[in-house]
Amino acid sequence: MFYQDGKLQYRVRVERPNPIFARALQQAIGGVEGEIRVMMQYLFQGWGARGPKKYRDMLINTGTEEIGHIEMLATAVALNLEGAPLSMQEDVANDGVAGAVLGGMNLRHILSTGLGATPENCNGVPFNASHVYASGNLMADMYANVTAEATGRVLATRLYGMTDDPGMKDMLSFLIARDTMHQQQWLAVIEELGGSAGLPIPNSFPQSGEKNEFSYAYLGHHKDGTTIPSGRWTQGPSYDGKGQFEPMISEPLGGEPELARPRPDSGAQSEQM
Amino acid sequence: MFYQDGKLQYRVRVERPNPIFARALQQAIGGVEGEIRVMMQYLFQGWGARGPKKYRDMLINTGTEEIGHIEMLATAVALNLEGAPLSMQEDVANDGVAGAVLGGMNLRHILSTGLGATPENCNGVPFNASHVYASGNLMADMYANVTAEATGRVLATRLYGMTDDPGMKDMLSFLIARDTMHQQQWLAVIEELGGSAGLPIPNSFPQSGEKNEFSYAYLGHHKDGTTIPSGRWTQGPSYDGKGQFEPMISEPLGGEPELARPRPDSGAQSEQM
Amino acid sequence: MFYQDGKLQYRVRVERPNPIFARALQQAIGGVEGEIRVMMQYLFQGWGARGPKKYRDMLINTGTEEIGHIEMLATAVALNLEGAPLSMQEDVANDGVAGAVLGGMNLRHILSTGLGATPENCNGVPFNASHVYASGNLMADMYANVTAEATGRVLATRLYGMTDDPGMKDMLSFLIARDTMHQQQWLAVIEELGGSAGLPIPNSFPQSGEKNEFSYAYLGHHKDGTTIPSGRWTQGPSYDGKGQFEPMISEPLGGEPELARPRPDSGAQSEQM
Amino acid sequence: MFYQDGKLQYRVRVERPNPIFARALQQAIGGVEGEIRVMMQYLFQGWGARGPKKYRDMLINTGTEEIGHIEMLATAVALNLEGAPLSMQEDVANDGVAGAVLGGMNLRHILSTGLGATPENCNGVPFNASHVYASGNLMADMYANVTAEATGRVLATRLYGMTDDPGMKDMLSFLIARDTMHQQQWLAVIEELGGSAGLPIPNSFPQSGEKNEFSYAYLGHHKDGTTIPSGRWTQGPSYDGKGQFEPMISEPLGGEPELARPRPDSGAQSEQM
Amino acid sequence: MFYQDGKLQYRVRVERPNPIFARALQQAIGGVEGEIRVMMQYLFQGWGARGPKKYRDMLINTGTEEIGHIEMLATAVALNLEGAPLSMQEDVANDGVAGAVLGGMNLRHILSTGLGATPENCNGVPFNASHVYASGNLMADMYANVTAEATGRVLATRLYGMTDDPGMKDMLSFLIARDTMHQQQWLAVIEELGGSAGLPIPNSFPQSGEKNEFSYAYLGHHKDGTTIPSGRWTQGPSYDGKGQFEPMISEPLGGEPELARPRPDSGAQSEQM
Amino acid sequence: MFYQDGKLQYRVRVERPNPIFARALQQAIGGVEGEIRVMMQYLFQGWGARGPKKYRDMLINTGTEEIGHIEMLATAVALNLEGAPLSMQEDVANDGVAGAVLGGMNLRHILSTGLGATPENCNGVPFNASHVYASGNLMADMYANVTAEATGRVLATRLYGMTDDPGMKDMLSFLIARDTMHQQQWLAVIEELGGSAGLPIPNSFPQSGEKNEFSYAYLGHHKDGTTIPSGRWTQGPSYDGKGQFEPMISEPLGGEPELARPRPDSGAQSEQM
Repeated sequence: MFYQDGKLQYRVRVERPNPIFARALQQAIGGVEGEIRVMMQYLFQGWGARGPKKYRDMLINTGTEEIGHIEMLATAVALNLEGAPLSMQEDVANDGVAGAVLGGMNLRHILSTGLGATPENCNGVPFNASHVYASGNLMADMYANVTAEATGRVLATRLYGMTDDPGMKDMLSFLIARDTMHQQQWLAVIEELGGSAGLPIPNSFPQSGEKNEFSYAYLGHHKDGTTIPSGRWTQGPSYDGKGQFEPMISEPLGGEPELARPRPDSGAQSEQM
Repeated sequence: MFYQDGKLQYRVRVERPNPIFARALQQAIGGVEGEIRVMMQYLFQGWGARGPKKYRDMLINTGTEEIGHIEMLATAVALNLEGAPLSMQEDVANDGVAGAVLGGMNLRHILSTGLGATPENCNGVPFNASHVYASGNLMADMYANVTAEATGRVLATRLYGMTDDPGMKDMLSFLIARDTMHQQQWLAVIEELGGSAGLPIPNSFPQSGEKNEFSYAYLGHHKDGTTIPSGRWTQGPSYDGKGQFEPMISEPLGGEPELARPRPDSGAQSEQM
Repeated sequence: MFYQDGKLQYRVRVERPNPIFARALQQAIGGVEGEIRVMMQYLFQGWGARGPKKYRDMLINTGTEEIGHIEMLATAVALNLEGAPLSMQEDVANDGVAGAVLGGMNLRHILSTGLGATPENCNGVPFNASHVYASGNLMADMYANVTAEATGRVLATRLYGMTDDPGMKDMLSFLIARDTMHQQQWLAVIEELGGSAGLPIPNSFPQSGEKNEFSYAYLGHHKDGTTIPSGRWTQGPSYDGKGQFEPMISEPLGGEPELARPRPDSGAQSEQM
Repeated sequence: MFYQDGKLQYRVRVERPNPIFARALQQAIGGVEGEIRVMMQYLFQGWGARGPKKYRDMLINTGTEEIGHIEMLATAVALNLEGAPLSMQEDVANDGVAGAVLGGMNLRHILSTGLGATPENCNGVPFNASHVYASGNLMADMYANVTAEATGRVLATRLYGMTDDPGMKDMLSFLIARDTMHQQQWLAVIEELGGSAGLPIPNSFPQSGEKNEFSYAYLGHHKDGTTIPSGRWTQGPSYDGKGQFEPMISEPLGGEPELARPRPDSGAQSEQM
Repeated sequence: MFYQDGKLQYRVRVERPNPIFARALQQAIGGVEGEIRVMMQYLFQGWGARGPKKYRDMLINTGTEEIGHIEMLATAVALNLEGAPLSMQEDVANDGVAGAVLGGMNLRHILSTGLGATPENCNGVPFNASHVYASGNLMADMYANVTAEATGRVLATRLYGMTDDPGMKDMLSFLIARDTMHQQQWLAVIEELGGSAGLPIPNSFPQSGEKNEFSYAYLGHHKDGTTIPSGRWTQGPSYDGKGQFEPMISEPLGGEPELARPRPDSGAQSEQM
Repeated sequence: MFYQDGKLQYRVRVERPNPIFARALQQAIGGVEGEIRVMMQYLFQGWGARGPKKYRDMLINTGTEEIGHIEMLATAVALNLEGAPLSMQEDVANDGVAGAVLGGMNLRHILSTGLGATPENCNGVPFNASHVYASGNLMADMYANVTAEATGRVLATRLYGMTDDPGMKDMLSFLIARDTMHQQQWLAVIEELGGSAGLPIPNSFPQSGEKNEFSYAYLGHHKDGTTIPSGRWTQGPSYDGKGQFEPMISEPLGGEPELARPRPDSGAQSEQM
């Protein structure tokens, strides 16, 4: 169950509202690297958590923090939209060039919300939950979470570089710090779960069930069939301590597939039968 | 540029076709843990690769392998659909219960493809590219790739458990082995890039730009304001060697947000102005 | 900013787990009538609220309640999946008919989550935020909210009728009660905003700007051009007290549209130019 | 069955074509507040109408009117695109600033349609039918329809404010008037269905089936657990005449959820079992 | 502008309602081969038609017919849902096997519509307008329309084979006939536009602008670099009368791409710079 | 199985990088007329091909070529982004007008990829596979493929016209030539399959199963019930040689539909029952 206090986790100030930066900020709300995604991901992971209870608490707790990050960003979007042009005439009056600002805005910020944020990315594509990972495998989920916080921090630093508004830089410096911590946090769970001893993921599947000769082979699909550039992944021990990397030229092990002819009543063309 | 030879990377046999398993296999084609996603992800990462060239080659090379995995799975779907019921009458004739098989199928396997695979997941939701990561940051991308192969291997082992067809188990044992290797492969790149020395991601952003007092703090959002269960993430050194984890009760650092009243011409209700 | 206590707003018990009912419950999580939608809608309305502050608090407060509803339903899905068949063999063993249960499940409940909920509807379609209303007009938003709670309560009563599990009926009886209240709550805001005096929405647009002869006319588009069945909407005063309903046969007031020929360099076929 | 006459319901003139306004108009075609949505919604409600026949006719009739609104708007988009720049060179020639117009356009207006409308919103996001309500409950549907016409009219008035083209203002003044009427029309059906006597929706579900102590309680989820600001929704009789509003501090009535440990063969990590 | 008469274009009878067939029929409503798609496609082509006016009329006219086809199919879905099980108990009572019917249904037919159609395909995926073609090139559009009617007729014949309900077969025999005609109709426009003289599409682009040595070459991407199986497309004159087909082994004409190193402030990892 | 050589099929040069043209190029990558779509379409058609084997090879072979086209375009996007403004300050410095370039960019090119391509269209809408045709009917698929190459070539010529960069024009002249060939190629298959003798599609369905009186009738849905403009489709022999075109005024052949009243427990409003 959840509670709120109507305040912001960190201050949100905008000195010079910029409607195009408002559009950019949307990526941190509804983009694949954004806060709605992590909020959903951590909460669904927590709600479905089976096994040790401590992870449920941690996931829901940090998921709860993320709701507040969406709140901060939604506020930042609204503040960046104060004074935005609502008409072609205002646009020209402000910038002298028709379309200079209006053309670069998410027009839904005017048309659909009256100068507020939307649950969309910077291109106005609505958030969709297809990429929320809650796999039931805690180790896999932790890598998904590191990914989310790594790409999230990359995004936040790019937004930081895009603006010179001191208020926005201040807000982003907080969000960047939180991303730093959250990367660490999920790595800490990986350590608790045994680190490389937990590989391959899932470690509950007996490796006797896999074709072991291909488990540590780097397959080359180069057309000439000879070039396999070397790297850490072509030599040395594997990280799970169970194999040795080796390069291998990929050869087709299966022949040409054979599908039955189409059945007469299956909608194919007669010439196919 | 790309080439093909019309053969399968590994043999695909189905002894007892099962149209419901055909539906399940679709998750490995078009699901978020599936092969279209990794193919796209590795290729786009490779095509956009800036910096050391060796990674471009590796990414495109493994992306090329993944196209062949989709091919294997699409073949497996088609073979599992051989002899599937095309009508209510056939369905009853086969199983004695109307809807037993037909009701559990992806009906597009009959209606849209004439017993072939689709670029969709197990629920018939079309693949969408919103969750393809190619961030321009190689380290972040590697974590995304480990995630993809970890969840992909979880999926493949679940499919392995779901069927008792020897041909399908054989095919999956190969794909599981490849997922094992690909998890290792991306971890090897992480090692080459410095491992934990590469943290926080992106490591090119000067940490002086973040609010350091929150960079290694685990924030508790528990309602009672006192309980913060401990874990590796509340104590000890951080993995980047730059801080110490600590628990911290989360307090609102920003007050209540203040948005301007709606402008008269912005479409709000008069009572709001 | 948000907080949590790890407990459920109301008890969630399942006496006889039913994986098909787990699928049905997903509609109340990720469907257009579901809880993710209202959570997002109330929070984004609150975060973007301009004008009287009391509504911001109420919207965020009730949005916060809704997060807990998702939590309850996600728990209910997980509990309905306890003991679900993970393989074709288990499926036959349990029910005697292959596919009886497995065929009716959201297979992602096995393949993607390991027996947990997803942010999807009952057909496995991921939640997408395209239908979240936060219009910047409080009155319009309140109608959207009544709609959400009306269709949400219709859904909840249908789920109530679908199951005979006492635990599930108990949980739903709570959610249905909350939907009752929330319908009332948004109607109360409509009353506070002036009720019918707030019509037409938005009431801040001067009606002199609209073609008044069509503002209270029910237009008949019947082919024969004469039949306009009567109803409250063809006679009597309008609800905003500003007009009288009247029936009117719809006639085209604009002629045939005239578009310019395609430009030579615009990609049209030569025959069109 | 449907008919057409090739004419426009109302005249569509554009004096000064503006490709950025063409993009804005798309929101009224394919946006969540747009005409494709209402057309689909009214028609599907009509086609699925069970019960009194008069509503079927009205819904299909007004749905038919809406097709003509899409036609008007598609024409308006095409007319606003007459003379739009097709190349970077033309763009500079027209405005002196590269990208001033082209950068603000929906580029599909050039690349995909050759200067015609698309079934998309103002950000180029294709219409999707996930938010079409046809619930089988007439009262719920009427609230959905008021919502559609309220947000639709808000949108139309914002478009009206955005342009100073007399032709476009004239067209919009007609569409705004129709939205006024349609808001009224659906409210008239609500009155015919008993108004507040129809609450809670659906009124066919016996309220004995709900947990009545929560049916008229406004639950406070404030962190401090004491503050519940008052409003019409915390006091006075409910609108269905069946209860009294009251404020209530929300307490968790369910404990911590208990999910079973993961099954050995379910793809979880060994450390979870 | 559009009109209606409340009647069906052709009779719709269902003798033995079948909720799983109701799900199948949805593909003909909201699937990629379905009627919403053609309705949208023909209408948007008509509304954006530039050039000879006769095609605008024909496109809008046939688009109008298609609205009536959606209506027929929506009616067929509703009739197939009469008497469908609304609960697990009813389901067992009817078929003796829990989930036999309910498990195979689109559960939204119960939960979201109260036994009516939705604007979705047979898997419950909402129609999305991303695949509506209105290219501004009439010839290209005609091929898109033949495609739509060809796949539409394939679908309709598969539905015809799936059912043995005489009413449904009767309805489908009408729709199949219309698809026959509509295939012909668009081919007739292709003839009017010059048939193969209209190739390549668009024929308004001067072929001097293309690399002619590759305009009629069938490129072989076979790994061994020698095998190019022959077909009509490797020999003989091209259909536009402007070239001769020839086989050609594909060789990379561009070298390895060279992208600049990442800029310091672009969010890449330091090791990439 | 697939192979690669790390080189480009054709050279990709950009003399004057243009971030807005980078956005435009995305349509050729992830748009409905783009290369991801044809790659997927040809490969899935090939992988599901039943019947004569030669078509499987050809489809997979050309699908393989298309992967290389995506590669070329992704490279072109990255090269057009070299030197793009990463901040508001850079934007003003470059163009003198804030937002002139940045406002017209796909901001994900900065924020999500660090100056690389995405699998999206020109509006930033992610590719979705809903419109990939692999129908199991070869003739229908060939028309889908002609459509793809026709609209693809229209798109490519529009991009050619939009830019004056010699490198980009050179690259496009190659892609346009390939589209020319691919249009021809699929038409060649249609000829091999019998051309018009293959109509109506599917030709394996006995035409005795369709309502023949409507198979070659052009139905007029004009409101006045008399006007049917003539064209090739209203007179003369049909292309399959089996009928004569004729005009026919469309009359409703079915009456008003009759749906049962809603069931008491189906969630409808009491007034509907």
